[in-house]
Amino acid sequence: MISLEQRCQDLTLGALCDFLKTHDRYLILTHSAPDGDTLGSAFALRAVLAAIGKQSYVVCPDGVPEKFRFFAKEDAKPDFEPETILSVDIADEQLLGKVKDTYAGRIEVAIDHHVSNTHFAKNLYLDASASATCECIYDILTALGLPLEREICEALYTGISTDTGCFKYSNTTPKTHRIAAELMLRGIDYAEINRIMFDTKTRARIELERAALDAAEFHFGGKCLILPVTLKMRQATGCTAEDVEGISVISRSIEGVKAGVTIKQMDEDLFKISLRTYEPLDASAICQKMGGGGHRAAAGCTLSGTLSEVKETILQFVGQALEETDAGTASV
Amino acid sequence: MISLEQRCQDLTLGALCDFLKTHDRYLILTHSAPDGDTLGSAFALRAVLAAIGKQSYVVCPDGVPEKFRFFAKEDAKPDFEPETILSVDIADEQLLGKVKDTYAGRIEVAIDHHVSNTHFAKNLYLDASASATCECIYDILTALGLPLEREICEALYTGISTDTGCFKYSNTTPKTHRIAAELMLRGIDYAEINRIMFDTKTRARIELERAALDAAEFHFGGKCLILPVTLKMRQATGCTAEDVEGISVISRSIEGVKAGVTIKQMDEDLFKISLRTYEPLDASAICQKMGGGGHRAAAGCTLSGTLSEVKETILQFVGQALEETDAGTASV
Repeated sequence: MISLEQRCQDLTLGALCDFLKTHDRYLILTHSAPDGDTLGSAFALRAVLAAIGKQSYVVCPDGVPEKFRFFAKEDAKPDFEPETILSVDIADEQLLGKVKDTYAGRIEVAIDHHVSNTHFAKNLYLDASASATCECIYDILTALGLPLEREICEALYTGISTDTGCFKYSNTTPKTHRIAAELMLRGIDYAEINRIMFDTKTRARIELERAALDAAEFHFGGKCLILPVTLKMRQATGCTAEDVEGISVISRSIEGVKAGVTIKQMDEDLFKISLRTYEPLDASAICQKMGGGGHRAAAGCTLSGTLSEVKETILQFVGQALEETDAGTASV
Repeated sequence: MISLEQRCQDLTLGALCDFLKTHDRYLILTHSAPDGDTLGSAFALRAVLAAIGKQSYVVCPDGVPEKFRFFAKEDAKPDFEPETILSVDIADEQLLGKVKDTYAGRIEVAIDHHVSNTHFAKNLYLDASASATCECIYDILTALGLPLEREICEALYTGISTDTGCFKYSNTTPKTHRIAAELMLRGIDYAEINRIMFDTKTRARIELERAALDAAEFHFGGKCLILPVTLKMRQATGCTAEDVEGISVISRSIEGVKAGVTIKQMDEDLFKISLRTYEPLDASAICQKMGGGGHRAAAGCTLSGTLSEVKETILQFVGQALEETDAGTASV
């Protein structure tokens, strides 16, 4: 890690702009299982580069999900030989997914907002105070003195809105709101964007939520909710991977729950655990005991065994954590 | 109506500030079934009036719901005789609810953002471009040159956030975001406010949603969803009126639905209908045919009869509207 960090050069905003102006023929990489921020960043950056007379094209390892296609319009093969590889919103080379073998070790500049960025690129422009990488792209655009075209605004708004839960979460800053105000001035249909991103569920997803909630269990006097999402449920409801995305939010949205545990079955005896906690519980500490990790309020791990074995393991560690904190002794 | 309007004086922001400075002993009225905006406006205005040396107290006809009490701290009886009655976020005197007989016809100034305000007060400060009445209170505070105290910021942020669906809906403007940025600079815990307002459901509410979705029916090839919320469901799940609030949002959150109809049973043979539509359907026009009204995307009416009679009536008018527009002829 240290040797990698030594090789990775941190860039200021000014240095990044100089780099972009003095290179050409860009290839822009998004992360696998793409979200609004990586796509918004990539397609806005493509427009920024076009505005300063540079060629570029976007490589999205898993393709662009339907709901982002109103701004994320993929090119056919580029008509130029790429020279300079950029990545947006990628914290770790593992997130290159299918194209990892092709591009790992070859990225010239990573543009990112994850404090956990592993410094895998030759150069890194990192703004960990940004709510989304799209905020970084906005800063680049402003620093280059470019106008806010409507298409760019749509891409950036989508990235910022999705990464902040529509300005709901603690990563939202006053600057985030000020940028949103500027983007909205360009007449984008932000209400429709938000409807697509937040208020549209497929019928399969609704069915899946219902099945998961039917199988949900409360433990420790309602302080822990176990939400199982089994392969059988996914098959019965016809849910795609996209439909399942974000379901763990439900586990901590119920009043009184301090630890929301979503158990996603990946294979017959393999489960991905997503743990969402409220103070004073530390999700990261709990998941570390099960071989995983993450943030204080949201962490994860992978467990093998039967569903009831996996549940038992989780309940043991969550119960321990509840007992060690005041959360366990409060009125039930 | 016209004679009322003639008697109602429109105030500019400057005139409103002059009024507030030259009167005293205020009573501030919120609307019945209070939401974040009427409460945020009332308690922020109380603090504004205190800052300019005026006495005031808030009357909330239905009391303050638990989740707003962190900023909306009701006074005991006032220790002064009220002289000047103000209302905030009230579009029509009917919304005074329980205190209508006491205060109707006596309101000196209504401060509001509803374009539908019926000009019931002696004076009206109306900003229909504001996303929330809390934006109006922010403007008053700024015009008076007062500092943004943390308590005021919490109240105003809550009102703006709840009235815009956390900056999600089309009533959000660039100004809304700029105000949010200013309020956040005062160190409020906006993420926790949003968690309480948007991401916390009671177990009774979750049970009710499940029961309603279990009884939901799709019609016209999935373009119309009927979501029944019966008294039996409310009893079985133990839902309070507060738990039921906002459930109609679900009806239009399912992919493909153009008309989401929530049928809330109020009495054995009385139903409140809430219709949410997407273009090209006009919810207001549909509800007008059933004796109700509202906005283009959200409207309502009240119907008598059995549940199946009520459903039949609604399906007739929704079906007609789907047929009259392109929505009915699209692929099923």
